[in-house]
Amino acid sequence: MTEHSLWRFSRAIHHALNERQTDQLEDMLDDNVDWAIYGPIDMFAFLGARRGKKAVIDVIKQIADAVSVHRFDRESIMLGEDTAASLMRYSITPAKATTPISVRLAHFAQFKAGRLISLRAVMDTFDLVEQTLGRQIHLPKIA
Amino acid sequence: MTEHSLWRFSRAIHHALNERQTDQLEDMLDDNVDWAIYGPIDMFAFLGARRGKKAVIDVIKQIADAVSVHRFDRESIMLGEDTAASLMRYSITPAKATTPISVRLAHFAQFKAGRLISLRAVMDTFDLVEQTLGRQIHLPKIA
Repeated sequence: MTEHSLWRFSRAIHHALNERQTDQLEDMLDDNVDWAIYGPIDMFAFLGARRGKKAVIDVIKQIADAVSVHRFDRESIMLGEDTAASLMRYSITPAKATTPISVRLAHFAQFKAGRLISLRAVMDTFDLVEQTLGRQIHLPKIA
Repeated sequence: MTEHSLWRFSRAIHHALNERQTDQLEDMLDDNVDWAIYGPIDMFAFLGARRGKKAVIDVIKQIADAVSVHRFDRESIMLGEDTAASLMRYSITPAKATTPISVRLAHFAQFKAGRLISLRAVMDTFDLVEQTLGRQIHLPKIA
């Protein structure tokens, strides 16, 4: 049985984030990869949509400069033939901060011929913002 | 081929949200269902963790009182034998607002004997908060 593309992709992306070695990741990205991590781009310019291998490699380098990843736990996972979805919990430290923060992220990935063609990620971004600021944002009670 | 539990669950939950009829949903929830929609509970008390059928039915009634669901699009979906994950885009109007807002939500569901035993949902909550407030929250540029 062939290893699922998700595992190769996961190793490649964490290798790129932790060691700043992007060669494995480049091999795993489709030339026209469609990429989006939804979130506040004013605070984190590496969030938002990217198109194509070069743009994704650039954004991974930006993320590697901006945060240190300490660990991640996969809380849920689903694998299809060429698809994968995970619910992950990351422990990271933003470059300008000293205390680690914890971020929950859900991603949906599609592969074709062993290469990533689409990634969509959703995070609990309000929690991310508050943890990054190190303080609570006052919110009115709506419901 | 039996219909996947996700479709029955999806109909039951939208029936409960739109018509406030929770009987179908009650039939689909395990007595000890484990439920969490991560997000700012100060603004929306119906977010957060719940345990057990009664607590989930109560929270669905709270959501039905707090928002109107206009439509939803399933952008990605993965189905396992007793599991499902979707990336959805909801168009909703909070009860105290007049303009609809758009929310992206990822959920991971587990079923057992046709009943929901676990649900985890992640939303782009910062976007949800800003849309609900009807204004931007100023954020420092971190990266």
